[in-house]
Amino acid sequence: MNVMANRPRRLESYVCGRWVAGAKDGVPLLDAATGAPVAFIDSTGIDFKAVLAYGREKAGPALRRLSFHERAAMLKALGQALMERKEEFYALSTATGATRADSWIDIEGGIGTLLSYASKGRRELPNTRVLLDGEVETLSKDGSFSARHILSPLQGVAVHINAFNFPCWGMLEKIAPTLLAGVPTVVKPASQTAYLTELMVRRIVETGILPEGALQLVCGSVGDLLDHVEGQDAVTFTGSAATGRKLKTHRAIVDNSVRFTMEADSLNAAVLGLDAAPGTEEFDLFVREVAREMTAKAGQKCTAIRRVIAPRSCSEALIAGLRDRLGKTAIGNPADEAVRMGPLASLDQREEVRARIRDLSADAEIVAGDPDNPSVVSGDAMAGAFLNPVLLYCDRPAAARAVHDVEAFGPVSTVMPYDTAEEAVDLARRGKGSLVASVFTNDPGFAEEVVLGLAPFHGRVMIGNRASAKSSTGHGSPLPVLVHGGPGRAGGGEELGGMRGVKHYMQRTAVQGAPTLLSAVTGRWVPGAEVRLDGEHPFRKSLAELRIGDQLVTATRTVTLEDIEHFAHFTGDTFYAHMDEAAAKANPFFDGRVAHGYLIVSFAAGLFVDPAPGPVLANYGVDNLRFLTPVNPGDTLGVTLTCKEINPRANAEHGEVRWDCNVTNQHGATVAQYDVLTMVAKTKG
Amino acid sequence: MNVMANRPRRLESYVCGRWVAGAKDGVPLLDAATGAPVAFIDSTGIDFKAVLAYGREKAGPALRRLSFHERAAMLKALGQALMERKEEFYALSTATGATRADSWIDIEGGIGTLLSYASKGRRELPNTRVLLDGEVETLSKDGSFSARHILSPLQGVAVHINAFNFPCWGMLEKIAPTLLAGVPTVVKPASQTAYLTELMVRRIVETGILPEGALQLVCGSVGDLLDHVEGQDAVTFTGSAATGRKLKTHRAIVDNSVRFTMEADSLNAAVLGLDAAPGTEEFDLFVREVAREMTAKAGQKCTAIRRVIAPRSCSEALIAGLRDRLGKTAIGNPADEAVRMGPLASLDQREEVRARIRDLSADAEIVAGDPDNPSVVSGDAMAGAFLNPVLLYCDRPAAARAVHDVEAFGPVSTVMPYDTAEEAVDLARRGKGSLVASVFTNDPGFAEEVVLGLAPFHGRVMIGNRASAKSSTGHGSPLPVLVHGGPGRAGGGEELGGMRGVKHYMQRTAVQGAPTLLSAVTGRWVPGAEVRLDGEHPFRKSLAELRIGDQLVTATRTVTLEDIEHFAHFTGDTFYAHMDEAAAKANPFFDGRVAHGYLIVSFAAGLFVDPAPGPVLANYGVDNLRFLTPVNPGDTLGVTLTCKEINPRANAEHGEVRWDCNVTNQHGATVAQYDVLTMVAKTKG
Repeated sequence: MNVMANRPRRLESYVCGRWVAGAKDGVPLLDAATGAPVAFIDSTGIDFKAVLAYGREKAGPALRRLSFHERAAMLKALGQALMERKEEFYALSTATGATRADSWIDIEGGIGTLLSYASKGRRELPNTRVLLDGEVETLSKDGSFSARHILSPLQGVAVHINAFNFPCWGMLEKIAPTLLAGVPTVVKPASQTAYLTELMVRRIVETGILPEGALQLVCGSVGDLLDHVEGQDAVTFTGSAATGRKLKTHRAIVDNSVRFTMEADSLNAAVLGLDAAPGTEEFDLFVREVAREMTAKAGQKCTAIRRVIAPRSCSEALIAGLRDRLGKTAIGNPADEAVRMGPLASLDQREEVRARIRDLSADAEIVAGDPDNPSVVSGDAMAGAFLNPVLLYCDRPAAARAVHDVEAFGPVSTVMPYDTAEEAVDLARRGKGSLVASVFTNDPGFAEEVVLGLAPFHGRVMIGNRASAKSSTGHGSPLPVLVHGGPGRAGGGEELGGMRGVKHYMQRTAVQGAPTLLSAVTGRWVPGAEVRLDGEHPFRKSLAELRIGDQLVTATRTVTLEDIEHFAHFTGDTFYAHMDEAAAKANPFFDGRVAHGYLIVSFAAGLFVDPAPGPVLANYGVDNLRFLTPVNPGDTLGVTLTCKEINPRANAEHGEVRWDCNVTNQHGATVAQYDVLTMVAKTKG
Repeated sequence: MNVMANRPRRLESYVCGRWVAGAKDGVPLLDAATGAPVAFIDSTGIDFKAVLAYGREKAGPALRRLSFHERAAMLKALGQALMERKEEFYALSTATGATRADSWIDIEGGIGTLLSYASKGRRELPNTRVLLDGEVETLSKDGSFSARHILSPLQGVAVHINAFNFPCWGMLEKIAPTLLAGVPTVVKPASQTAYLTELMVRRIVETGILPEGALQLVCGSVGDLLDHVEGQDAVTFTGSAATGRKLKTHRAIVDNSVRFTMEADSLNAAVLGLDAAPGTEEFDLFVREVAREMTAKAGQKCTAIRRVIAPRSCSEALIAGLRDRLGKTAIGNPADEAVRMGPLASLDQREEVRARIRDLSADAEIVAGDPDNPSVVSGDAMAGAFLNPVLLYCDRPAAARAVHDVEAFGPVSTVMPYDTAEEAVDLARRGKGSLVASVFTNDPGFAEEVVLGLAPFHGRVMIGNRASAKSSTGHGSPLPVLVHGGPGRAGGGEELGGMRGVKHYMQRTAVQGAPTLLSAVTGRWVPGAEVRLDGEHPFRKSLAELRIGDQLVTATRTVTLEDIEHFAHFTGDTFYAHMDEAAAKANPFFDGRVAHGYLIVSFAAGLFVDPAPGPVLANYGVDNLRFLTPVNPGDTLGVTLTCKEINPRANAEHGEVRWDCNVTNQHGATVAQYDVLTMVAKTKG
């Protein structure tokens, strides 16, 4: 099928393993710039209950059988396959009103999110199917009853209901963490730009990389789908607050405590620092950032700057600077390379934005841009949903309401002056919770006061200054490794944030029991659990032979005063607590001269290391080393080393093994406790 | 005021800094065992909008000014003060129908939760006002733009709406994490047992330990309070699913994305293992646990065992064992020491339970206990809400519905047989999400299969076996360090879980910027941020003088082959990669003989340690040590040590300082990276 043919096509949904057209002809979707029909959309006749069941039963078990590293590899392959086909997406993206730069955010930004989850997943998650959360909690004095939290994938389906502005990124940023968690997805793009999502899903399905059913697509209404969601399902929504509220209070979602995440309206603020007067680098950066945020995607970004909070003394210069920049923005058909800003997504959308500008005018005056007479450098000003950037100014923002309540989802921002840092924070907070705020300052004190003041009301706060001018990813860019979402008006949701985003699709469970059973369930050795002492040094065992609980109890070694002095002079660490009895005694932690911590761990290694070549290849690190009891000359040390975690790598001949290392003295007291990290070969020789 | 006087008293609410009685006389609350009035309850006339504003404006700033350690100390003092007054609470608790053992859970369990949060807070949180979450994320190749997540307290109020069964614990388990987070609370106990909560709040207020407004109490209806909640507030609810749904969809909660947590119905299951036949220790433990869970608090616990899933071959023996135990349970007035099970909370509650038993009878037959004819050893069987424990048996549980859907909130459980582990998991899951399940088995394989199968549907899973028989805290006990809550029918909430519970009342915010500004905002040094190199060794600085970013760049030292051999023979670590060129070369990670990791860190200490007595008292540990580049003979090492975090202790003359330790070779490559942890005196000398 050549989706690029000029004839508008009927979009199909990909459900229950096949592409299906709706029973009706469907509603036409128009090119934002030309008004020509691009596609028709309809989903009538789909059995939505079956769609959910298909995801749960067909794809759920297949995804859960994969380890985190296998799922990460799947995302990487998918990201690479999509990147190879990116030009096809760019070509179709123009119809949405997006310039090449706008499409880059949507297409490559989306694919980049897949790749980021792939790489973080491999680096930050173990190669297992269940995650551990936090440390072992010892629940009894004798160590015979302990607990550990685990995270396991939900056994339902995640339904992702997306907004029109990012048909690719909106899907990819949500399916990446969901699939990595091991949970199948159903994606419902907003109709207006669903043709681009549909094209991308076609290419995804064609790759055959995802297990069948892991990604289903509904083009058009989701009908009664939400009536069938259950307690193991999750629903996410990006879009208008009004729709979000309706979904959130949907009976099945409420009755079954379905996890629901929403990302809705947000009157994001950008604050210019008191130090950032005209002439400073920060002032210029601020002007550039505000203008960019107003015009990128024609201002149709949830994260765009809606409120520009600037020192009263700078307001005039700021407005002049913005007016100048915005005036130079070439508006027109995004297919034209000279164009810097395309049309809004639809004529309806433009009418909506114009109405909101009228609302804002209750509090603010227009100081740049005419909302009613678009001036274009190319394209048909009558046919396309063009709108000039509109800048407003609100002189008394503390007394105003509309400027803090009304979101015009287009190239529209309001400048509001402030006098003190406290006032700037107060104004930003009047947005009642936003996705993001930015603060442009080179003054660490101002940054601290304002950022900490904004933090409880925001999911993300960006600081802009000269030092990050070139490297900053900007106010408006959600990043896969940072949380995206905001409290209050912004919907209270949280997406992305690296591996945090994966955990939204997993259930946290506290598991309690005797250490041996807890080890069996979690696959990690828990202190107190049974051990295997079979006479073979565990360093002689390959991953194939090694088991958690394999233990070595070493011979002992007495630490002499000569050892301490020798070590001090050899290493150069002649700290008084090792060298001077009187001075050591004066130290609140010691009774007299003590051995170096590094001497203890060095001697411990001397006791537990098996010298000959074997499966253990290297010690690549140590975690959580604590020196718990001072070692005095004459103390005798021994080590108990126990295999705690075995993590074979997917694409290598070795894997990581974590050993519990407990160094004790002649009284049985623990002098040092830590994890030794080694690389171990999968097989011998 | 002597609240123990015999005359029933009018309960008061503690709001806006004073105790106020409702405008009306109020509804009488009756003693569960005697039917005598204990108190009257009414909240008419309270200005609930003012209550929220008072908490937000009066107590919020005061709590947020305290550090986590100061808040933890406050909880500790409060817990100790309440423990001293515990007998007064026990005396009044009898009126709720609680035996001494039941009251212990409520009173000492609740106070213990306060104390657990106090001690964990001091040990696991820094002595700051803002928490860091996760690691630094480097967002640009040149390191000039980075990010870090922080958690800051919500600036609203947490409204805690509690159930009747635990008037003390229910309040304390919720206010402990909330207050530790720095968020004021409004507690609304269920009317039936509010007199005990009111007494405890009186004692809390009298201590003067909490900042004024940090704890407000509403005895009676909360009126229009929920109409006034805002985006920075949180609402928690424990109680019936029907009420929970109403609250969750309350307009102000939905419109403002108020954080809402619910803990509702839960048909908790206990599974007897296939290995645990009659005669095994696990079988006996199971009988004891089920009987205890049925009778503790007369079965009025959200975590009680409602469904008893047992191998079909054991069902008969199990029923016989339970019948025997339950039959011996002395029921009566809890004031009587011989009594093992008191009445239900009220006559209405008993009628409710009897109705639910009738519902269950659609699927199951009663095999022990007569719901209509209570037999008591003391007290007035007619006046009190007494009910015998009722055991049911459902022979075909896979085909049944009521037994998996109907919660009889009293001493009622249903035995259901299974044949395979898979069936047992399937039956437990039919509860559609529960707070807790338990599995009694001594077979690690059975434990693994069943616990992992149950996990996605449960907030907590307990394994019972002979090894933890004496130390187990039991199926029904939520613990402060473990999450409490469950998916689906259980409400989808999550409470407790140690410091996880604190974070429910904090906003997570990604902060992005140049490292220097990021350091200023987070109070922790971020790699790439400005440093201070003032010529003074940072180990010569006390906490009063030290600043984050204080840095030491050491002299260098060349590692010779002799050093490596010497270290090997001295420590005993003669691993071949250090000793044998050919063997080392054969290792996939090395090009030839390498220095020991422990030699590198020992030499590093020799380079950075300042030997003379001074403010740095001890090195108490190392975190996240990674060896990143092999060190070969002839390589020259240098160390850059930078002060990263300063954490003064509240009650000591010293504090913890975390140093970023970067060991590089002559090419500038990092060979080892880690955090050095030291104790440093607050002042010199």
